[in-house]
Formats: sequence, C-alpha cells, structure tokens
Amino acid sequence: AIRAELDQMHAADFALAVGEFNAPLAAKLLDLLSLPDHAEVFAYLDHQLQADIAATMPRNQLAALFSQMESDERADLYNQLSKEQQQALLPGLAQAEREDVRKLASYPEKTAGAMMSSDYATLRSHWTVRKAIQRLRLEAPDKETIYQTYVIDGDRHLVGTISLRELILSNPEALIADIMLTEVVFVEVAEDQEDVSEKIRHYDLLALPVLDTAERLVGIVTYDDAMDAVVEEATEDAQKAGSVAALETTMDRVSSWELYRKRVGWLVLLVFGALLSGAGIAHFEEIIESNVALVFFMPLLVGSGGNAGSQSAALMVRALATGEVEMKDWVKVLGREVFVAGALGLTMAFAVFGLGLFRGGPEIALTVALAMICVVLAGSLIGLCLPFILSRINLDPATASGPLVTTIVDATGVVIYLGFAAMILDIAV
Amino acid sequence: AIRAELDQMHAADFALAVGEFNAPLAAKLLDLLSLPDHAEVFAYLDHQLQADIAATMPRNQLAALFSQMESDERADLYNQLSKEQQQALLPGLAQAEREDVRKLASYPEKTAGAMMSSDYATLRSHWTVRKAIQRLRLEAPDKETIYQTYVIDGDRHLVGTISLRELILSNPEALIADIMLTEVVFVEVAEDQEDVSEKIRHYDLLALPVLDTAERLVGIVTYDDAMDAVVEEATEDAQKAGSVAALETTMDRVSSWELYRKRVGWLVLLVFGALLSGAGIAHFEEIIESNVALVFFMPLLVGSGGNAGSQSAALMVRALATGEVEMKDWVKVLGREVFVAGALGLTMAFAVFGLGLFRGGPEIALTVALAMICVVLAGSLIGLCLPFILSRINLDPATASGPLVTTIVDATGVVIYLGFAAMILDIAV
Ligand SMILES: [Mg+2]
Ligand SMILES: [Mg+2]
Ligand SMILES: [Mg+2]
Ligand SMILES: [Mg+2]
Ligand SMILES: [Mg+2]
Ligand SMILES: [Mg+2]
Ligand SMILES: [Mg+2]
Ligand SMILES: [Mg+2]
Ligand SMILES: [Mg+2]
Ligand SMILES: [Mg+2]
Ligand SMILES: [Mg+2]
Ligand SMILES: [Mg+2]
Ligand SMILES: [Mg+2]
Repeated sequence: AIRAELDQMHAADFALAVGEFNAPLAAKLLDLLSLPDHAEVFAYLDHQLQADIAATMPRNQLAALFSQMESDERADLYNQLSKEQQQALLPGLAQAEREDVRKLASYPEKTAGAMMSSDYATLRSHWTVRKAIQRLRLEAPDKETIYQTYVIDGDRHLVGTISLRELILSNPEALIADIMLTEVVFVEVAEDQEDVSEKIRHYDLLALPVLDTAERLVGIVTYDDAMDAVVEEATEDAQKAGSVAALETTMDRVSSWELYRKRVGWLVLLVFGALLSGAGIAHFEEIIESNVALVFFMPLLVGSGGNAGSQSAALMVRALATGEVEMKDWVKVLGREVFVAGALGLTMAFAVFGLGLFRGGPEIALTVALAMICVVLAGSLIGLCLPFILSRINLDPATASGPLVTTIVDATGVVIYLGFAAMILDIAV
Repeated sequence: AIRAELDQMHAADFALAVGEFNAPLAAKLLDLLSLPDHAEVFAYLDHQLQADIAATMPRNQLAALFSQMESDERADLYNQLSKEQQQALLPGLAQAEREDVRKLASYPEKTAGAMMSSDYATLRSHWTVRKAIQRLRLEAPDKETIYQTYVIDGDRHLVGTISLRELILSNPEALIADIMLTEVVFVEVAEDQEDVSEKIRHYDLLALPVLDTAERLVGIVTYDDAMDAVVEEATEDAQKAGSVAALETTMDRVSSWELYRKRVGWLVLLVFGALLSGAGIAHFEEIIESNVALVFFMPLLVGSGGNAGSQSAALMVRALATGEVEMKDWVKVLGREVFVAGALGLTMAFAVFGLGLFRGGPEIALTVALAMICVVLAGSLIGLCLPFILSRINLDPATASGPLVTTIVDATGVVIYLGFAAMILDIAV
C-alpha cells in the first residue's frame, strides 16, 4: 500500500513527512520502500536524521543503501558517520565504490570537491554523434545528468563539452571534436562553494565540471546543489548580520544549547564596546549635569548614527557577497557614501533642530543639529568601511553585523555629540 | 574579428564587458555581432542597460531582436520600454509574437507569470516515444528546454510530465500515456516568485510548469531564473535587515538619489522611537542625578538588549523566509527562546555584576545584574515576536530589521534599567 502511495507522491514530500518522526520510526517507514525508492527519499532527508537512521541499520543494509545513493549524497553521509561506523561499512562496499566514497568524502566542507558528484557522462572527441548517443543511452541510469556531457582525452583532461540537445540536433555521423565547445567553464576542487554556485548562476549552467590540480576531470557540481548552497550562504550571512555565528543546523532542529553557544560570544564581546560608550559619557559627566536636556537627545543622536551605519553595512556586505561591488571599488562607493550620508545627515539635522529648539533652546538645537550631521556621516562611513576592512584582513565581511556596527558607532556618537555640546555650550554659557 | 573572439567567449562574459560601456557604445559593440549572438548577449545585460540600448535602436532592428530573444526575457524588456516605444514596436512583430509578448508582459512583477517562458515543449499522451523524440528534435531550436516536457490534452490541461532522459531510455514503441508521471508539481500564474523558486529548489526541478486559473498550461519557469530569484530575494531581505527599503537597482548601478530615498524613510521614522528612549531617561532624571554611576552602565544595558533582540529577529526572519519555521510554530520557538534568552541573560548578568561592584558598589551591581537579565530577555522576545506579528498583519517579516528592533528595545531597556535602579537604590539609600 505504501509503495503504491509513494508512486503518487514526490520523494521530497515523502521525506518531509518521514522527517517528522524520530530516527527509529523513520527507519521503519523507509524499510517499507524498495531499495531504489528508499535511497531516493533518504537523499532528501536532513543530514542529521540521515546519520541517526544510518546508525540504526545493520551494516549490510547500510552498504546496500550506499550503493544505491548518488555519489555526492553518499559522501556527505559517510562524513556524518562515526569512525567505527565508517570502518564497519567500508568492507561491505565494492572496491570502486569504496574508493569513490573515500575520495569524495576527503575534500574540505563547502568546497567544489565536497559538493561534486562523480557520476558524470564523458565522451571522446573521435567518437561520432551516433556513438556518443548510444553510449549515453547505456550509461544514463548511472549518471547524475546526461544533458551536459564532457569530452576528455586519454589522461582525463577536459577538452570540450557538449549538451544532449546539441547532440540530438547534430548529424549522427559528425565527429564530437567538430561540434563540441572548447572554451569550457570549470572550477578547481578547492574552490569555495560560494564561487562555485555564483559561476553556475552567472553562466546559467546545468552542471559545472570540477578539475583536480593536475587539470583532470574529477566531478561535476549540479545546479540543484548550487541552489542549495546559495540558500545556505544567504542564511549564514543573515545570521551573521544579526551577530549570530552561523548555525550548523536548521532552525526547526537546532538545540537550545547550540543557539546559546552561537549567540553568547558576540553578546559578551560587544560588552567591551558598550563600556567605551559608558566611559565616553562618564568623561563628559559635568556637561551632562549642567545641561540635563542633553540626555533627552542622547538616544536619538547615538541611535541615528547606529541606524545609518547598519544601513551602509547591510548594503555593502550584501553587495560584496553577490559581487555587485568588489574590493577595488571601495574608493568609488566611499565617494558616493559621503554624498548620500551627508544628505541624510542634513535631512536628519533639520528634523531634530526644531525638536532641539522646542525642548532645550537655540544652543541645544545647534548642538543637536550639528552633531547629527557628523554622527550620521561617521556612522555611515564606519558601516561602509568595516566590511572592506574585514575582507582586507581575510575575515568574512558579513562579520560587519548590525550590532557590531551599532556598538562602534555608539561610542563614536557619544564622543561627537558631547564634544559638540562641550564646545557650543561652554561658549554660550 | 570580434565574431571569432565571441566564439571563444561565453555570452555572459561578453555581456559583462559590454556592460562597462554606456548605452550608445554598448549598442555599437553589439551591432558587430550576428543577430542570434546579439540576442544571446543582450539577454545577459542589466535590465536598465537593455532598455537604454533598445532606445537607441531603429524600430525594425528592435523588432528583429525581439523575435530572436527568449520569450521571458523579451517580455521583461517590453515592460522596460516607454508607452511610445511599445506602440512603435508592436506592428513590427509577427502576430503570434505580438500576442505572446503582450500576454507575458501583462503579469504582475515577481509572480510566476512574470518569470515564465512560453517556449516549452509539449507532447500528447497517445503519441509513441519514437514520435515524441522526433517532434522534440524538430522543435528543439525554439524551446527553452527539451529536457523536461509536458503532456497536455486537447484543452491544454496538463496531464503528465516526462523527461528526455526517460524518453530515450524507453522503448520507442511505448505510449507516452504509459510512461509519463501523472503527479506533476506546478504553480499558478499568480504565485509569488519566492514560492516558485522554493518549489523548484525543494523538488530539484529543471523547470516548473505554470497553469492559468482554468488549469491550462501557459508557461514554464526554468531553474536558472529561479536561482536569480533566490539571490534577488536574499538581497532584498539583507537590505531590509539593515532598514533599507529594497533597492530597484544593483549596487554597482544605483544612483545616489535612489540610495537616499531608500534610506531616509526608516532613519526619520526611527527618530520617534529614539525620542521614547529620551523621554524614558528624562522621566528618571532624578535617579540619574543622584547616582551618576548609573549612566556609565546605560549603553551597556540598553545595547545588550538591542543586540540580543537583533539576534532573535535575524534568526526568525531568515527561518520564516526559508520555511524552516512557520507561523504555526510560534509557541514552540517562543518557549525555546525564553529558555535560551534566560541563559544568555544570566551569563551577561554574571559578566556585569563584577563590573558593577567595581565601579559603583553592591547596589549598583545588583541593579545592573537584575536589569541585564530582564533586558536581554525582553529584547530577545521582542526580536522573536516582531517578525511573527508583522507576518500576521500581512507585512513582510523582513521588516523586523536590526535598527527597528534596537530602537524598540532601547526604549524598553531604559525603562527596565532605570525602573530597577529606582526600586533598588531608593530602598538602599
Ligand atoms: Mg559532499
Ligand atoms: Mg562561505
Ligand atoms: Mg542567470
Ligand atoms: Mg547532488
Ligand atoms: Mg540533490
Ligand atoms: Mg559567506
Ligand atoms: Mg543602540
Ligand atoms: Mg518576466
Ligand atoms: Mg518577495
Ligand atoms: Mg535540492
Ligand atoms: Mg529564462
Ligand atoms: Mg536566463
Ligand atoms: Mg521577501
């Protein structure tokens, strides 16, 4: 019954439903499926659940599942297993599979090597189109895709690429060498997943070939995994923008303990920044005591600088991540920012001048308005420069989070505001 | 010469280079290409530049370009033209093209209708596999993809789907009806691009069929456009997280004026929030005057609440965007948040108790520590709830930006901190 049901249900949806159960129950459900269906559904499960289910399986069943899985998914699962599970599993695999798993599992996380599949279709340049199509038909069941194929020489060097569409539109007697594209977009195994997916997106590729350091073809990264990487990277950056260290788990499965660990670091670190603001306030204590109206405007001044800085940082971090802006553009964007932030500062100064007049008189109004221009300008420039500086010292620009920028700008804002107050009010009093 | 060069260069890269020039120069460069090459490169250009180049073209050249472009790209370009340009262009197009452009251009932006292409391949269920493959071979040059094909009945109702891979693996005499998949994933024309791309990603699709309200097949959305939509949506959310209204242009082409407009709104709006904090401080003026050491800790207390709130908001906004958390999960995540935020608050309280002792004595230390627990807890809960509330009242949860959360939490933090101070210090003094 469940098999018939599954025929009418997409494996991704079946996996979603299975994911609602704990590992032992999920394993029982999956056992009702045929091995190929099991492998297909299994591939859509969360990596953590995959590992938990694998732990419940007898080693020969796990070996059978491994043989059915796609090469890239299989390597990911292998990396989730404990050393003992890995040792128990390997003898159950055929030699070629064992080597494939070990090889694919050996690349560092979030690189082209870790994303790639070894199930790609290759052609030889001296073949005819007819022969190529015959071969693809034979190999299709074992390949991740046959829509994009790769032409290699005797040393597995990549010499060209051709799509199935071009093949079936070509004369069956034509030689592959004569119709293949020779300028092939590729990446090296060590390339970061961010650059891998950006290449797939930029060139609208179905799959991107991966070469080893000797320039031999060793795998392909497919569009669907690139799309997952794009979402994963955006999630990571969104979390960093909120000063949360990138989570390892999705929000529906994350533990309280992981959440605590990923948040506490920045919270504590930013204490030191906030103490600087406190020290700034303490330093100007007398000014504050003699003009208490100043305190009323403090959150406004300091907050506006932080807000403007958060805006600039958010824009820059994202533009650097998508490649819309590059390191070399920093002078250009800085010039534009001075102009835009100046205009924003002026606008805000007008807005608060009236408030200042009403609430504290002309000197306060002048102090608040002038300080506002400087604070918004300083905040914006700090927010803009921080991602560039971080990138320059080889840190992730996404570390320029709202809270980090706000904390730095807060301290700067306190000094600017109370500094102006000291100057203007001392003269006036 | 340039044509030979282009053969060795990907259209996407040629477009990148062309994009460095202004519209008249870019148009001249493109004129050196054959019409099909021109259309291919043109499709990779920024939409604004496309419109600018189109404005320099004689109407018959533009009509020729339109005929060569992919249906989805063409409709986007049409929407960028002025009313007069549109009127001048239409008579130059063949009737079928004219209707296709008008139809595709009529759907609201960022919906399935606006993303879709009308160049999809259809089959009939009574055909044999042999006939289907023959037809696909004939139609391939005009189709966006022939790798995924759609089986329709006489009324264009979608009755099944089959991939080219399955076709070439099947017996040539088999009937399409017997081998097609009948449970087809689809979307309606009005569906949001976020949901469209999420479906493509969830099911690892090459293309997703789009049905009109009468359930007739009217187009397909391909994976490459879905990937662009994913990046576009993530960029929008990253900008909103920094309190910037979503930009219409990329950061390398945006004008200072657009940047100003997209930033000034929130900056001014948040002034009112900051005034609340100011009012809070003014209300507790006497407490501050009699215990100036309190001011030193104010940025720390208030800032930590804002930081914790930014963390929660960033996590929730992203989890809601990716679907990891849904509206119905709010009780569950709220419970977890109370626990995590409580632990974070306690940690922070320990950290500042020592500082408080050292800087202001036991009463100040107690005030600061107790206030810290409450402020971190309040900030976290505000940051967590705001995205849910916004979503509930049909606003984009991404509006729960760092600056908005910080501003709200600042005012809350001032009241909590000085409230505790009033209680504890009044008793102690
Ligand atoms: Mg992997
Ligand atoms: Mg990364
Ligand atoms: Mg693209
Ligand atoms: Mg894969
Ligand atoms: Mg996959
Ligand atoms: Mg990143
Ligand atoms: Mg603040
Ligand atoms: Mg469109
Ligand atoms: Mg949207
Ligand atoms: Mg997927
Ligand atoms: Mg398209
Ligand atoms: Mg495209
Ligand atoms: Mg959105």
